[in-house]
Amino acid sequence: MPIWIRGGTLLDVINGTFTDGDVLIGADGKIAALGTFAAPESAIVLEAHGCAVLHGLVNAHTHLSQTFMRGLGDDKKLLDWLKGVVWKLQAAMTPEDVYLATLLGLVENVTCGVVALTEHHKLVNSPAHSDAALRAYLEFGLPTLFAYGWNDLGDGALQLDQIIAEMERLRATAHGSNVQVCVGPMVPWRCSDEAMQRTFALAEAWQVPFHLHAAETQDEVGLMIARNGMRHIEWLARLGVLSARTQVVHGVWLSDDEMRLLQKSGARLIHCPTSNMYLASGMAKIAPLFGRGVPIALGADGSGSNNSQDMLELLKIAALLAKIETMDATALLPRHILYMACVEGAAAVGLSSAALSLGNVARLICVDIQTPRSAPVHDPFSALVYTANGADVRHVIVGNRIFVRERAVQGVDVAALIAECTQAAKALLRRAELL
Amino acid sequence: MPIWIRGGTLLDVINGTFTDGDVLIGADGKIAALGTFAAPESAIVLEAHGCAVLHGLVNAHTHLSQTFMRGLGDDKKLLDWLKGVVWKLQAAMTPEDVYLATLLGLVENVTCGVVALTEHHKLVNSPAHSDAALRAYLEFGLPTLFAYGWNDLGDGALQLDQIIAEMERLRATAHGSNVQVCVGPMVPWRCSDEAMQRTFALAEAWQVPFHLHAAETQDEVGLMIARNGMRHIEWLARLGVLSARTQVVHGVWLSDDEMRLLQKSGARLIHCPTSNMYLASGMAKIAPLFGRGVPIALGADGSGSNNSQDMLELLKIAALLAKIETMDATALLPRHILYMACVEGAAAVGLSSAALSLGNVARLICVDIQTPRSAPVHDPFSALVYTANGADVRHVIVGNRIFVRERAVQGVDVAALIAECTQAAKALLRRAELL
Repeated sequence: MPIWIRGGTLLDVINGTFTDGDVLIGADGKIAALGTFAAPESAIVLEAHGCAVLHGLVNAHTHLSQTFMRGLGDDKKLLDWLKGVVWKLQAAMTPEDVYLATLLGLVENVTCGVVALTEHHKLVNSPAHSDAALRAYLEFGLPTLFAYGWNDLGDGALQLDQIIAEMERLRATAHGSNVQVCVGPMVPWRCSDEAMQRTFALAEAWQVPFHLHAAETQDEVGLMIARNGMRHIEWLARLGVLSARTQVVHGVWLSDDEMRLLQKSGARLIHCPTSNMYLASGMAKIAPLFGRGVPIALGADGSGSNNSQDMLELLKIAALLAKIETMDATALLPRHILYMACVEGAAAVGLSSAALSLGNVARLICVDIQTPRSAPVHDPFSALVYTANGADVRHVIVGNRIFVRERAVQGVDVAALIAECTQAAKALLRRAELL
Repeated sequence: MPIWIRGGTLLDVINGTFTDGDVLIGADGKIAALGTFAAPESAIVLEAHGCAVLHGLVNAHTHLSQTFMRGLGDDKKLLDWLKGVVWKLQAAMTPEDVYLATLLGLVENVTCGVVALTEHHKLVNSPAHSDAALRAYLEFGLPTLFAYGWNDLGDGALQLDQIIAEMERLRATAHGSNVQVCVGPMVPWRCSDEAMQRTFALAEAWQVPFHLHAAETQDEVGLMIARNGMRHIEWLARLGVLSARTQVVHGVWLSDDEMRLLQKSGARLIHCPTSNMYLASGMAKIAPLFGRGVPIALGADGSGSNNSQDMLELLKIAALLAKIETMDATALLPRHILYMACVEGAAAVGLSSAALSLGNVARLICVDIQTPRSAPVHDPFSALVYTANGADVRHVIVGNRIFVRERAVQGVDVAALIAECTQAAKALLRRAELL
């Protein structure tokens, strides 16, 4: 059935403009009318008075298996957290845990206005673990870039042939769905040159992204230099795996040379401001990179290092961090931040244009900005970045499917899911001897 | 009537512990029972299943007349913002504007779980402007420290006798209410030594705080040194106005000597992390100051430089900023942050203990932490700081009065207030020639 979004303020996140109007989404999930029009009587009506209506947010980097780990890293340094919590829990997680954690994470993301995301999949303990994560994505149906994480050196190393075979298997499972499988080297200093090059060739053949953690902490840069005398981006360039297909996640510690390499290659930076602050990793130089034209998308990162998936909350943190990093209050404006979250985000996960235009697939959110936390609104872009949060998301529509209606996730008993996840997480902590 | 808060997790913000239980508030507004008990049949029942129940947050520094200015500073440097927006709007505000902006700001604060606040009152254009702000506070009835702002030098200077007479007049008006009038020097480099000392003597006589902006930006420190060869805190100490009565707002740029002076004097720091980031003022050294035992409370600052009053959102920003300032992921833990927001906040506004104990006046909030943004909860302190936001506040009770019930502010037609404020703000911007 057609969907009629009635009475909002329509935001053009590409050009930074806005106007009042309605949106009609056809039964085919494409935008059929904009502005003022006669809606078919059969249309489902979604009220959007007092709402900003815009292309939804894209969470361009997360690990949803960490949904069970919220808050466990609050009082720990990075290495204590990894060794004492994350690795223990990851080792103890069953496929069913992965499925539940992923599903709850998806519910959280969509509730907070996310219409597409990148899962950097970490739980590769067994094919059953990967299948469980993929099953949650396939069942939920939100557009997802599923970056299969791997290392072929050190702890948790897999054989290169095994890595490639597993990616091929997962890709076949996801074929024809809203989920696209791509290549996700996990920890660069545990990836051999050969494996990087061969999996990059696979990404080229499949025309999918090459998504990897890089230059997150100073220590990690030290490890790279110790291993092969090069910094992360220099190494990627030398291997021939730095291109517009490459997605550098974090990129907190980049030299000027590396920033130039990024710019020249067209590679994309995935900025995770909250996670970088939570782990005290550092402040990425986002404003200068944005100024150089490096494409930048935003990610919440896993709930182990955030502890939330609320991308609307993250917009404000991204703006504030850029201001304090540059000591310039005008470093990044709300329009820049929403451009990253929507336009660059959509491009990062391989979706077509984020334009609010006739004929485009609808990926829309309606966010209430007439609350005591936002009013009076002089500028809806500012209201979204600085005053709205995930709880203000009223409707979420992707294609012809309503994911969230009047703040309720459709087709999921959220209270029951929370209860089940709470029990499963407690049992997991007990098995890992953390309770 | 007694109030029965049923089925929450009770947080002791002083000791950092928690336990499941109910709370009974007697008709006198004091905590009458805790844990498991037989509630009187006449009690009003507030359901709190899935909620953290704790002493409410205190917003220890704000300017609610700025509620009409949200977002107007997003794209401006500090001086352009002050000259181009704030001063123009302040000059054009009518007493009715001040009343409405203050009322909406109060609704926002209480909706987000604030049970007491400090208004650093800026709109001293005429006694009618001060009366309008005070009227909003008196009518609303939330415990408020009303710091009358003044300068006796430079632009907007008032005569010292006039300042003192006006504070005496406002104090008489507020007598016997929930509002306490105190002394609020506005811009230190526009306050004469004599006026500082005479108004401090008044604060001593009245036994109320001496609340002032200090060391917010590097430029401001330069101005102080140029004027009298001393930095802010040195100057306060030299004048004899640095004591446990003194509240230093911002304190971003303090020398080691000034930190020692603060510590020795018992003066309180009011930390405004979001505002300090928004204006690119800098990163206050909160973790080391907390480590030295300096009492620290938290403030949202006015909506001109935040742009919100959501103290739950601010808890996360305070934690993240401390981590990045120190480059230590364990710099401030959730329990430290809630101690600042509740215990030190209550002390800053002159309220008795924030303990959840029999016989204490109830100032309680119930915050839903069983949402897809918070669950599963391993630790309610972490959930409050890192995952909850203002929209999760379900009930707010102060004394025997329910301010917020099931997320709705009692006794205020919020939609009508927002509509009225939106119109008034638009008219104000037109009068100030900003539209």
